[in-house]
Order: sequence, then C-alpha cells, then structure tokens
Amino acid sequence: MIKVRVIGAGGLGGAGILDLLSQHPQAEVVCVVARENVGKPISDKFPHLKGFCDLEVTAPDDVRWDDPVDVTISATPDGVGMQYAPACLENGSKFIDFSGDFRFNSQEAYAEYASRIGRSPEHASTGLLPQTVYGLTELHHREIAGSNIVGNPGCFAVSIILGLAPAVKAGLVDLKTLISDSKSGISGAGIKPNPAHHYPLRYENMNAYKIGKHQHCMEIERELGLLAGQDVRITMTAQVVPLCRGIMSCLYAHLNDTRTTVEDVLAVYRDFYAGSPFVRVVGPNESACNNDVRGSNMCVIWVNTDPRTGQAVIVSHIDNLMKGQAGSAVQNLNVLFGLDETTGLQRPAFFP
Amino acid sequence: MIKVRVIGAGGLGGAGILDLLSQHPQAEVVCVVARENVGKPISDKFPHLKGFCDLEVTAPDDVRWDDPVDVTISATPDGVGMQYAPACLENGSKFIDFSGDFRFNSQEAYAEYASRIGRSPEHASTGLLPQTVYGLTELHHREIAGSNIVGNPGCFAVSIILGLAPAVKAGLVDLKTLISDSKSGISGAGIKPNPAHHYPLRYENMNAYKIGKHQHCMEIERELGLLAGQDVRITMTAQVVPLCRGIMSCLYAHLNDTRTTVEDVLAVYRDFYAGSPFVRVVGPNESACNNDVRGSNMCVIWVNTDPRTGQAVIVSHIDNLMKGQAGSAVQNLNVLFGLDETTGLQRPAFFP
Amino acid sequence: MIKVRVIGAGGLGGAGILDLLSQHPQAEVVCVVARENVGKPISDKFPHLKGFCDLEVTAPDDVRWDDPVDVTISATPDGVGMQYAPACLENGSKFIDFSGDFRFNSQEAYAEYASRIGRSPEHASTGLLPQTVYGLTELHHREIAGSNIVGNPGCFAVSIILGLAPAVKAGLVDLKTLISDSKSGISGAGIKPNPAHHYPLRYENMNAYKIGKHQHCMEIERELGLLAGQDVRITMTAQVVPLCRGIMSCLYAHLNDTRTTVEDVLAVYRDFYAGSPFVRVVGPNESACNNDVRGSNMCVIWVNTDPRTGQAVIVSHIDNLMKGQAGSAVQNLNVLFGLDETTGLQRPAFFP
Amino acid sequence: MIKVRVIGAGGLGGAGILDLLSQHPQAEVVCVVARENVGKPISDKFPHLKGFCDLEVTAPDDVRWDDPVDVTISATPDGVGMQYAPACLENGSKFIDFSGDFRFNSQEAYAEYASRIGRSPEHASTGLLPQTVYGLTELHHREIAGSNIVGNPGCFAVSIILGLAPAVKAGLVDLKTLISDSKSGISGAGIKPNPAHHYPLRYENMNAYKIGKHQHCMEIERELGLLAGQDVRITMTAQVVPLCRGIMSCLYAHLNDTRTTVEDVLAVYRDFYAGSPFVRVVGPNESACNNDVRGSNMCVIWVNTDPRTGQAVIVSHIDNLMKGQAGSAVQNLNVLFGLDETTGLQRPAFFP
Repeated sequence: MIKVRVIGAGGLGGAGILDLLSQHPQAEVVCVVARENVGKPISDKFPHLKGFCDLEVTAPDDVRWDDPVDVTISATPDGVGMQYAPACLENGSKFIDFSGDFRFNSQEAYAEYASRIGRSPEHASTGLLPQTVYGLTELHHREIAGSNIVGNPGCFAVSIILGLAPAVKAGLVDLKTLISDSKSGISGAGIKPNPAHHYPLRYENMNAYKIGKHQHCMEIERELGLLAGQDVRITMTAQVVPLCRGIMSCLYAHLNDTRTTVEDVLAVYRDFYAGSPFVRVVGPNESACNNDVRGSNMCVIWVNTDPRTGQAVIVSHIDNLMKGQAGSAVQNLNVLFGLDETTGLQRPAFFP
Repeated sequence: MIKVRVIGAGGLGGAGILDLLSQHPQAEVVCVVARENVGKPISDKFPHLKGFCDLEVTAPDDVRWDDPVDVTISATPDGVGMQYAPACLENGSKFIDFSGDFRFNSQEAYAEYASRIGRSPEHASTGLLPQTVYGLTELHHREIAGSNIVGNPGCFAVSIILGLAPAVKAGLVDLKTLISDSKSGISGAGIKPNPAHHYPLRYENMNAYKIGKHQHCMEIERELGLLAGQDVRITMTAQVVPLCRGIMSCLYAHLNDTRTTVEDVLAVYRDFYAGSPFVRVVGPNESACNNDVRGSNMCVIWVNTDPRTGQAVIVSHIDNLMKGQAGSAVQNLNVLFGLDETTGLQRPAFFP
Repeated sequence: MIKVRVIGAGGLGGAGILDLLSQHPQAEVVCVVARENVGKPISDKFPHLKGFCDLEVTAPDDVRWDDPVDVTISATPDGVGMQYAPACLENGSKFIDFSGDFRFNSQEAYAEYASRIGRSPEHASTGLLPQTVYGLTELHHREIAGSNIVGNPGCFAVSIILGLAPAVKAGLVDLKTLISDSKSGISGAGIKPNPAHHYPLRYENMNAYKIGKHQHCMEIERELGLLAGQDVRITMTAQVVPLCRGIMSCLYAHLNDTRTTVEDVLAVYRDFYAGSPFVRVVGPNESACNNDVRGSNMCVIWVNTDPRTGQAVIVSHIDNLMKGQAGSAVQNLNVLFGLDETTGLQRPAFFP
Repeated sequence: MIKVRVIGAGGLGGAGILDLLSQHPQAEVVCVVARENVGKPISDKFPHLKGFCDLEVTAPDDVRWDDPVDVTISATPDGVGMQYAPACLENGSKFIDFSGDFRFNSQEAYAEYASRIGRSPEHASTGLLPQTVYGLTELHHREIAGSNIVGNPGCFAVSIILGLAPAVKAGLVDLKTLISDSKSGISGAGIKPNPAHHYPLRYENMNAYKIGKHQHCMEIERELGLLAGQDVRITMTAQVVPLCRGIMSCLYAHLNDTRTTVEDVLAVYRDFYAGSPFVRVVGPNESACNNDVRGSNMCVIWVNTDPRTGQAVIVSHIDNLMKGQAGSAVQNLNVLFGLDETTGLQRPAFFP
C-alpha cells in the first residue's frame, strides 16, 4: 500500500482526498495534518468520514517528516506547500500540491502569479521550481511519471486548458481571439465562510469577478503557449453561480479557416483525447451538462461551431473538486507510482 | 384607471403582470383569460394573489372583445397573441404581446424567427406587422408612445441589447467580434413542467443549449444593426444555471482602438443611459450581481475592459421575469398611456 | 410623515425594514445606525436599495437622540436595544425592538430567557419592562395602540403562537401534549457568515438543533398560558432547511374530545381570526405552502386533524423576515400611530 | 458473479441500483428493462453511467424470463412488480421489489394499503404474499436470508421504523402518543416531472401533504406493532423541503416513566443497533444532519429527550435514494446471497 500524508485535511480539498483514498485499493492515508481539531479524529470535523478515516489530526509542528510516507498531498491554500515540500522530498516522500506553489518552473513566473493573488513574490523553495511538473495528467503524463513533485492545476485552468488544447495544438483557431467564460460552483472558494458565500446572500445570486485578472490565466497561457509554440493570451471571466460543485467553461475562438466544419473540429478533439480515460468529447448533436461530471473525475467537452460568425464554441465541464482538485491529485498519484491512472477513480457521477 | 385584460394569465408571465398591476396606482386588471381553471378565481391557481386578484378566469372563446378595455396584455407563448390582436385593436384596446409574434415588422423577418423555434412561417396578422413597435423602452420610447401595438422583447435580448447598445452606437467595438455568453434562471422556460427543469435533475446542474441558434439572436442583431447603421452578427450561447430568476450576460467585443480605456467606455455608457431610470451603469472598481436586480425592473451594466487582450467585457444583469418580461410590459404600458415610465415599478430588488 | 430611525441597519432585519418603509406612504426613514460602513450610504452595503434609501450610516456613538424622530426601530441582536431605548423614549420617540430585550415584563422572566441564549441575566433598562408590550399584533392590538415600547416577537414564536392560539383559547386540546416541529429558512440566522450556513455545507443539508431548549419557548408558553388561563408547556424542535425565507411549524395537540371534528376546529380558527387581515385559515381539503407567504406579511394556517389518533395537526406558514420580523414591525408601527395595520404591507407574496 | 436484472431502469430507483451495482464486487447487471429508450444504451438516458452501464434497454414484452438471472430488482412504481414476480421466481430468479406490492403478507393488508394510494385492492400475485419478507434488513435479516422475495421498505418508513423501534421494543414510550414529523427531499417523488416539483415552483418552497393519510403509515404500524406485541398507531406528517436527497424524521413519544433519562434511552438505542453496520446512534451532546448520510446507506439516529415535557425526541436521518431505496435493495441482495451486508455499500456520504 502506498502510504499517504495529507496536509490541510480540514478543507474541502482535504476532505475530498480522504474520501477518494478511502476507496483506493492501493493507497492509504497514514497521517492527516491540520491546524484545527488537533488530537481529535478528523471524522469529528467531517462526520461523513466516520468509519472511513478516523485518524487523529496532527498539528503541522508535530509532524514527523521522517516517518515512512510515500507521498505527501498538500491540500492547502497558497504559501503552505512550499514550506513543507523540502522536508518531504528529503525524507523520500513524493509531493503533490493543490495550490499555485508548484505550478511554475521559475521564480519569475511564480512572482507574477503571486502578484495576482496579493502574495509576496518570494518563494520559500525556489530550488524546487525547476523540477516541479504541472499536474494536468492529460498533457504531462510522461513528465509526471518521472517526477517527485507535482503542482496540481487550478480548477478553472483544468476546464479551460482541456477545452482549448486540441484546437490550439492543431492551429485551428486565431490565438488572438481566445475567450473563456467560466462559471464555477461555490465550493471552489473553499470551506471558510464569508459574506459572498453565506447561503442567504448566495442562493439565487450569480456574479462575475476578477474580470481579466484571474490568477489561473497564467498557467492557462503557459500551457496553451507550449502547445501553440508561441505566446498566447486569453480573455477570461470567472463567475460564481449558485451550485456547490461544477465548472462550465464556454470557450470562444475564431476559426482560422472559414471552411473548417464542426466535424473537422470534432475529429481533432476525438483524436487528441483518444487515450485519455477521463475526457469525453461530444459532438454538436449531443449535449452536455454538469450532471454528467458531478462527483466524478470526468471532463466532458462539447464541440460546437457557429458558422454564421466563424467561431468555435467549446463547452467544457468538470467537477471542480474532482478533476479540478482531489480527483486530479489521485490521478497524478497513480501516475507517480506507476498505477493505471484510473485506479480508485472509477465511479459514476453522483446522480441526481 | 386604465382597464387591462390579461391573456395567458396562468403562466409565469401572467402571474407577474397580475402581481405588478395589483400595485399599480393607475391601472387595474378587469379580465383574466386562460385555458385552465375557467370560471374559478385566478387566485385558486396562484394563492399568493388571494386578496390581490380574485377575478374569475375567462376561457379564450368566452372573451367579449368589445368590452371597454384600454389595453390587452398577451402573456402567452408564440402564436397566440397574433390571433387576438386584431379583435383587440379593432375594439379600441391597445396590445402588448410577450412572445415573438410582434417583434418584427415584416413577414420575412418573422418567418426567419419562426423557423428558429420550429413554427410555421405564416403569421396570422401580417397586416399588423408594419405598425408594431419593439418594446425595449430605452431604445424606442418615442415610437412606443405613438403606437397601439408593442412586441415585448425577449428576455435574453433585453440583457444583451442594453449591454451592447452604447458601445455599438459609439463605434467603440469591432462588429465582427460580438459574443454574448448568457446565463438564465429557470423561470425563463415558463411554468410548464419538463424533465430538464424537474428539481432533482436541475438543482446542481447547468448547461448550454441552442448554441449559435437561439431565436433571440434575430432581434438582437436587428436592434444592434439599427444602432450601428450596418449589418451585425453575434455569437450567442444561452445557458441555464440553477436559480429561478435572473439573467447575466457576459458580453465580449474587441475594441477598435487600443487606446480606448475603460473610463472612455464607461463614459459612453453613462451618457447613453443618462435618461434611463431602469439602467444603472457601474464601473470596473465596483461590482454587480443578480441580487442587485432580482424582483426589480432594473438592468445593471458593469463595464470592464481587458487591456491585455483589447476586449471590452460588459456584464449585464436583469431579472428575466421583470425587465425581461412583465416589468418591461408595465413600463411599456406606462409609455403607451403617457404616464411616467416608472409608475408602479418603483420597488427595490427582493433581498435576500 | 412618521419619521423613523433604524438601529442595526446593516443586518437582514435592517434591510427588511428599509425596504418596507421605502414603500410606506406615511413613514420615512430619517436615520440609519450601524457599526459598519459609517459615513457611507447604506445602499453601498445593500445595492438593491440604491435609489430607495441612500442615507449615510451613522455610528451608534454619533446618534443625536434628541433629533425629532417619531419612532426608533432597533433591528439588532439581543442586548443592544435595551441600551438605547431610554434615550429614545425620553426624547419622544416610540421604540420597537426586534430582539428579546423587550418581550418580557419582568426581570425574572428576562433572566430565564437570557440564560437560554447564554447572556447575562442583567437587563440594562429594567425599569422599562413593566410597560413594554409583546408585539404579536393579532393578540395585542389594543395594548400596542396604547404603548410606546414594543418587543417584536421571535420568528418561530409568531408561527407557533398564531397556529395554536385558537385551539388553546377554546380549550379544544390537551395542554400537556403540545408539540411544535418548526422548520426555518436560513435567513433566520442573520447576515453574519458562519460554517453552518456556508453555501457548500448548507445546500442539500437539514438538521434539528436546540431540541427542547430554544429560547422562543418562553414567549410561546407565556402567550399560550395567558390564553389558556393556566401554565402551558410545549415541546419544540427547531430545524433548518435549505431555503432562505420561510417558517413552517407543524403543530400537534391531542384533542380533548374525540367527537371534535376538523370542521369544529376549523370554525374555531376562522372565528378567532375573523378580524385579522394577515392571517388566512385554510381547511383540510385545501393546502398551504411557503410560496403562499414568501415575501409577504401573511400567516397561512392549515387546519387538519387525524381522527385515527385523535390529534389536531395544524400547519402554520410565515415568512420569517416579514411576519416573523420586519413585517410585524411595520404592522406594529401602524398600530402605534393609529394607521390601518395593513398600511404599506399590502403586497402579494414573491412568486416564483 | 451474481447476475441481476433491473426492471424500471429509467427511474431514479433504477439509476440508483445501476450506479451501486457498477461498484459491487460480486454482482453485475445483465439486463435492464424499461418502457422508454428501448434498444438504446441506458447510458443514453443517464449519461453519468457511460462506461459503467451501457446495456441496451429491453422492453418489458421482450424480456426473456428464462434467461439465467440470479435476482430481479423491480425499481418500478406500484403495480408493476406484482406482474413480473411469478415469472422471475419460476425461472429461479429471486425478486426484490421497490414498491408496496410485496410489503404485506395478506390480501387484506395490501388492499388497505392500495386504497391509500388510489389503486385497486386486487393484487396480481396474491399467492406470493404469504412468503414475501419486509426488507428492512435491521429487523428482518434472518427472514430475508431465507427468502426468495423481498418487499423493499418505503423511504419514510425506513427512517421512522428505525427511529422508533428500540423505544417501542423496550416499552419506554406511550404507544398512544407516537408522532412522526417527516421531511423529504424531492427525489422521493421520482423522475417524472410535475408542477409541484418544477424548479421555479419548488425552490424556496416547502409544504406538508397527506396529513394523517400517508400510505407508509401501514407498514410502520405493522412493524412497530410486531415489536410492541400490540396494535400501534402513529400520527404522521409527510413534508417536502427543497433539497434533492434526504429524509429527516423528528419522532415524538411520551416517556412512560418520568424517571427515564436521555442516557437510559441512548443505552437502549445503542444496544438495539449494536450489530447494525448501517445505523449510527448519537447522543444529545452530539448532533446529526443530512450531510452525514447523503449518498450513503447510513441511518443516523439522534437521541434526545425533553425533561420539561416528558417527551422522547428522536431525529432519524437517511438518504431516501440509498437506505430509503437502492441502498437497502443492495443490502437485501447481499443478505439473499449470503454476502456480508455491507458489500458494495461502503462509501462515505457525498460531501459537500
């Protein structure tokens, strides 16, 4: 059994990873780390885990980093994983981080990201940046397999990159016209209460935010740029709609060639994801919705074009807590340890 | 008192107009027409109206068209209003229609619209088309005041046209790049149950539909074309998100001039809507959300740009049942009868 | 115009009273008091009030108590109103308090109430307790009319007392068997975010709390005891269900006489509320639901019996923010100033 | 592998059983029967099952009843299972029915049940009634193990019987005072759209229905009567609250002995369910909520008393689609085939 340490077990990301690993046939959680509820079973905080994970919470300062652990998953906000990664790696534990701490390979790139979320440009483990791998498994399976440290991708980024990658790679679209209109459920903002997500103010509400300024733009533009072989910029509008789990990104890009049909685009997408068990591509005569992915690790990509205006219109659906977070982490864990990437992740979407 | 007949009183549009007119100081409903619950008080179907509107339902065949009625509001689906409009007009009743029946001034334009919703291209009252006025009050106040027949605009169309009109009119944006990514609450689909809007299948769900094919595109392109003085096309993606009331349209258009700042755009919008009591324009340092408009007749337009990509990003919020339907109808009624357009519509948004 | 000062304007109760008074023909808010957003328009915090109430927020310490104000409404949590009531009364302002501060006429009764909510038994204005009137208008219209200080009732209490009063008064039911199973929407817990009402943890959730220990029991037992002419105890289970506004109390009591029919009970209820414009009694062949009352000041009481078990089963519906809070306050304001009690409150429930 | 035929695969119960069996290590679905989508993969109707169950739908008339099937699960409404049970049993397939068809052992008992749901008193397979077993596994494990036909219990009934059984069995409570105030999510009403569950009319709504007349009363009274050794009657109020999955029953019963403490009651409950893996009993200082059970087969029972009034107040939580339907069916399947009753059901509640 692969022994797993989970840092930040008291958040939604932590709850998600504990849930998934309780069902994983080849991995087991051996240590849960959090600042709150120290010394009590984590299932006191998350009663739904009673009988599935009753480990006592260890405070960060009390973690024995030299315990025999195969992988540490840091399900914390930005700035935490970078503090603990070195101790883990030095003691033989691989490292998967949920935040932006390890999504970039240079101090400069990190600094620009950090500025977007109001953090210091300093990185506590600069030396690890060159070796970290961006954990979007569909694009970096081989690099992840050969690495010890993975930066799990941002939830919006997963939906957007997977939704645009084939078109960008194939040169189908004008790279100066990329737009992502992305709606997220509320769990994307985490477990900490705040006025914007207080039930009476959030039910029946919806809003856009950080227009043109979302921090996930950076990893999206980097990844799409790698596929395109040139710099890419995207207009991104993040939005919150009143549901708990789910991201729907509507992606717009002008087709380079007016003769490109929707079948052409569809063929490119089907080909690109032929070997990806967690991506399902559907054509214009089908449909897609959040119910298709909720609670599962699937990304469903609905390919459309609007011939009247020459636009490709791609709709990309994921569950932000699964493919957008804990599910991708388990997928990456599987790859890190040479397992089939679907191990422990083969569950239908939660319905209804 | 202005005497009002309401056709289609059993739907959400009908309930909305009865609610609003129960609070209107200068209008009163004198006849409610519907196919169901004939002979019973309409408040049997809508108990929230008990004490506010207890008129008995009249079947369509039993309506006395020569009753002294000042205005008839047809809150029905497509194809109904066109049957009754002539009898109303001939008997001295003005006519406001909620459907697409009277949004176009020619048989040809109507036929194209009809084809998008799977209806016959024939129009039962072709002769009235040249005189009907498109009831987006902010753009056609003067024409409405001089007319007897008004085609109330489509809910998506209201949010999109109001959101783009100033930029299009002022020539700020490239007309070949217009995109509307529009999310609607579920009440937009009416009162009739169907699988897609059955609670267990709809809560926590969201989806796009009719991509590039929505029937409201036609009135949007016509209105924007009139403002631009040239043909306009728009890429529109309609979406349903799990809330009851509300439309949020995120509007994208490439700025013609890279030197145009967000303040420039904002100034154009503020100027355009200076005399419009139901439009509030907010700048990039403020914010907007559905709670600002729910239950009210307001349209809130949030003006942003993304200088990195040269896009104008406009977010337009309305309540689809108010400014998108019954509220606009009352606004048009006020204009038809020379009242202040805000009469009976001055209520804060429903909060929380 | 009646001049109104609102203390605690930044909460849901404050927002509610500002909304209602913006539509009231004979009252106007002249001063809004809150601890936050001091010096800014209250509509900065509540954008839905823009154009309806844009008064600047006054800090509690900056209030000029000798300003000419006819009535002060304290929409604050417990312990605040008792501090400001004397200054208001001394300066000629009547006083309506939303909390439990003025629901009891003796120090002893207040102390027991205070113990249930973990507050000190001391009351800052003990001298006012003998003159305060319990603001359940249907039961105390005459006393309110002759008073200067009103303790607005608790939201659960409104639904339960109105639901049981006729049966208790008429001696229909065994007073040792009273049970209230009461479900509330989430707005009952106020505007302050907390984990229990964070959207991701609250949607799809429901739970009971304070079983047998809810502080509203005290005012319920006092009021029912006054009607019965003897001590009364009730078993009360408070619950939260995932909606914003609404209370549904299912009330159970064993019928004293097995020959009592549901028609008998219904007649007693209809008679009791014959002069109450905000109570609608419906019989067993009809039905009732939260949609009947949401956003309105109505209480709908559905009378049933279960002859197999000899129980009366009464279902009482209110909107906790209206009849359970701000609506009752306006109703009491009307009575305090000799207006018709429905003034400014005649609006249909918000639908849908 | 146990071969399973599912009748009524197009409903929520069918979707639930297909989902659960896709994760079951020792059972596999070999035939899905439904009236709609015949000849197409069931995953066309339920896209979340793509890759998990893609069997083609067989029409009822085309089922080959002599196919080698170990168990047939009829996830249909009332009146269907009784038609197919004989053919299944005759061909060696055990039978589990979701409806009320096989919850009663006599024609008389069935007839009374049928009258409550407006069905004919006739039963198409009267001869099977004496051998059917009531599938509440916690009470009838042994009988189920020895049977071939199981009537899966009603969802409300599961929550109520499990919540009251220990107190009734131990003689703690006055049997003439039993009350169940039961709230259900909307999925309990099935997949078929209707006005009451149309999203715009259901969100923010709640209501009681069938007061004192719910058909589940019969099985509840029968089961509690068996435990008590005497006739039992219960006052039951069914309610719908706006969530998809979950039942919360608040159960009231007068304690026979005023000296009985909550610890006494708790001890009786803990003892009663000592061997039941799917029941968790929690004491008055803990708490319980729908999040504890949603998506899982657990029943959480929160034991309280109100010493002021002498009432036991028990709160029982289940997921109506799991322990209230498909989960219980799999639990019964496990018992029918001698497997551990938790096989394939060990998953944490879905959170958040």
